[in-house]
Amino acid sequence: MTFAIPTVAPFDHQVASVARAHLDRLTKPQGSLGRLEDLATQLCVIAGQVPPPIPEHPAIAVFAGDHGVVADGVTHWPQEVTAQMVANFAGGGAAISVLARRMGATLSVIDVGVATPIPNLEGVIDCNVAKGTASLLHGPALTSEQAAAALQVGFDIAEELLAAGADLLITGEMGIGNTTSAAAIISALATSDPAKTTGRGTGIDDETFARKQQIVHTALQRFPERDALSVLTQVGGLEIAALAGFILAGAARHVPVLVDGVITLAAALIAVGLNPAAQFVLIGGHRSTEPGASLALEALGIEPLLDLTLRLGEGSGAALAIPLVQAAAALAAEMATFDAAGVSELE
Amino acid sequence: MTFAIPTVAPFDHQVASVARAHLDRLTKPQGSLGRLEDLATQLCVIAGQVPPPIPEHPAIAVFAGDHGVVADGVTHWPQEVTAQMVANFAGGGAAISVLARRMGATLSVIDVGVATPIPNLEGVIDCNVAKGTASLLHGPALTSEQAAAALQVGFDIAEELLAAGADLLITGEMGIGNTTSAAAIISALATSDPAKTTGRGTGIDDETFARKQQIVHTALQRFPERDALSVLTQVGGLEIAALAGFILAGAARHVPVLVDGVITLAAALIAVGLNPAAQFVLIGGHRSTEPGASLALEALGIEPLLDLTLRLGEGSGAALAIPLVQAAAALAAEMATFDAAGVSELE
Repeated sequence: MTFAIPTVAPFDHQVASVARAHLDRLTKPQGSLGRLEDLATQLCVIAGQVPPPIPEHPAIAVFAGDHGVVADGVTHWPQEVTAQMVANFAGGGAAISVLARRMGATLSVIDVGVATPIPNLEGVIDCNVAKGTASLLHGPALTSEQAAAALQVGFDIAEELLAAGADLLITGEMGIGNTTSAAAIISALATSDPAKTTGRGTGIDDETFARKQQIVHTALQRFPERDALSVLTQVGGLEIAALAGFILAGAARHVPVLVDGVITLAAALIAVGLNPAAQFVLIGGHRSTEPGASLALEALGIEPLLDLTLRLGEGSGAALAIPLVQAAAALAAEMATFDAAGVSELE
Repeated sequence: MTFAIPTVAPFDHQVASVARAHLDRLTKPQGSLGRLEDLATQLCVIAGQVPPPIPEHPAIAVFAGDHGVVADGVTHWPQEVTAQMVANFAGGGAAISVLARRMGATLSVIDVGVATPIPNLEGVIDCNVAKGTASLLHGPALTSEQAAAALQVGFDIAEELLAAGADLLITGEMGIGNTTSAAAIISALATSDPAKTTGRGTGIDDETFARKQQIVHTALQRFPERDALSVLTQVGGLEIAALAGFILAGAARHVPVLVDGVITLAAALIAVGLNPAAQFVLIGGHRSTEPGASLALEALGIEPLLDLTLRLGEGSGAALAIPLVQAAAALAAEMATFDAAGVSELE
């Protein structure tokens, strides 16, 4: 199979100037809502309307997959934790479960590539493409068929969520070892040195960290291609492929996509590599402490809304930003104008 | 009259270590929720319990007052805008009105010192102590009686909100000219040069900015005292006094107080000057672009949750942070432990 990269109808950037003029008529000093005004303007352009719709139906999708490179010693966590955490997400006990409830978002948990048995399948969407990837150290992590299938999983999940009324997509992930894959993707597509993109993930010692850096470096030497699809196949994870498909579906439908930490940013680089027009639906939720995250954000031209030193993943940083996105839209949609409120303007 | 500075029962800081141990048992890598873990720990200490209560009943109070120094030319906005915006807050069209609805918070709008007639009194709580302050340039802005009465207004409003079930207090304000008063307070209490604390507020030209700096400098030369009550009386606004009383009531009741921009931070400096124990209930909502805000935050030892380049006031930056405070408490209260979720711990 192949994955059909969706076309993205051009965004009407003239909407931005209409949005700016609208924001300047609201009862506040011009520009005083700072970055929320930029965000409100982006939401207007994405939707093609001023004021923008308020996204009242956020949908979080957590894609889970395992990584063959774990066998090469890049983490201290056992691989079973991926499956265990998938059950924990669906069972309501993980950070993203709590945040989804708090933020009034739906939470979909998708097995796109978990390697070990999931202790409790209730609430887990089974889209398993493979029981984990091959090690990116020794050869391509994915076959072309696996990459295409995983991209399609993410695309289809987004389409289902959008059909059910979702108006804001939030990217989440789980996969022991996936910061290694993300570091390789960011190095390849943001053309950065692995020494800069590779971080300590959930916390590793110096020896493991040095090995992880060397593995990323070696993997990138294995193949010369630097296009998004080749990079995805060579070093990508199944959950990262699904996230890229998920983002592309949001872009195709002109729905904003809140991205999270280093893994979902790597997926965003893949998505934008496959279709550059997808960039405009991306909203940065949180600046992960993982070093590759900042490099990916810079490459994507995104300034995230939050910087709370989180390094958890799951979509947690993006979920925390949901109220800010809703607030930006609500301010643009619901504030009174100077005229309507009878407030004097600047002398 | 005099204002009785409330006593604040000592916080049990041993609760912090119990809170940290609790957070480390939850299904996430240790410390991976970053600053939300610090915030959850603070909420535990404030409440004296682990996990902390989730603040489901946030209450925003916007105190409004006018400033005699406006006659000396520190802003381009007409003074009537204070009264007009008070009506706009209560009428639902201002930024803080929209944000209060969005965040599920109550919004109380209190006239503690508005100078001109408020166009629509519906929904405005009348606690007017005086029709604005005297100019801080030429003499004390407040009499001792006015300062005490305004402190009491804020204290009483907080007590009423807490009696009605509020479990998170959010500080807001309105007052044309009040960044001048705030700059003077921050200069006096954080011992900073007026050239560093004075900003452009809602936006002023170079000539007005130079005059504003000179006015703050001259006002600080008028009197030698640097204790909080003297500074408040000499250069404070009525709304700033009320905010200080409001914060002290929160501290006395061990309820967290979310502070906003430069004006409410000046009030926090007054509150902490009156009773240093009040510091521990303060949570920083947002880092205003106004330069005095960062100096006050540093003096108070607060790192705010958001940095979105807002410079609006009203309580807008603090209101935006409400979901983050709730999320920090909910994560501590609702996440599963490794044992309960059957998730393997680090090898």
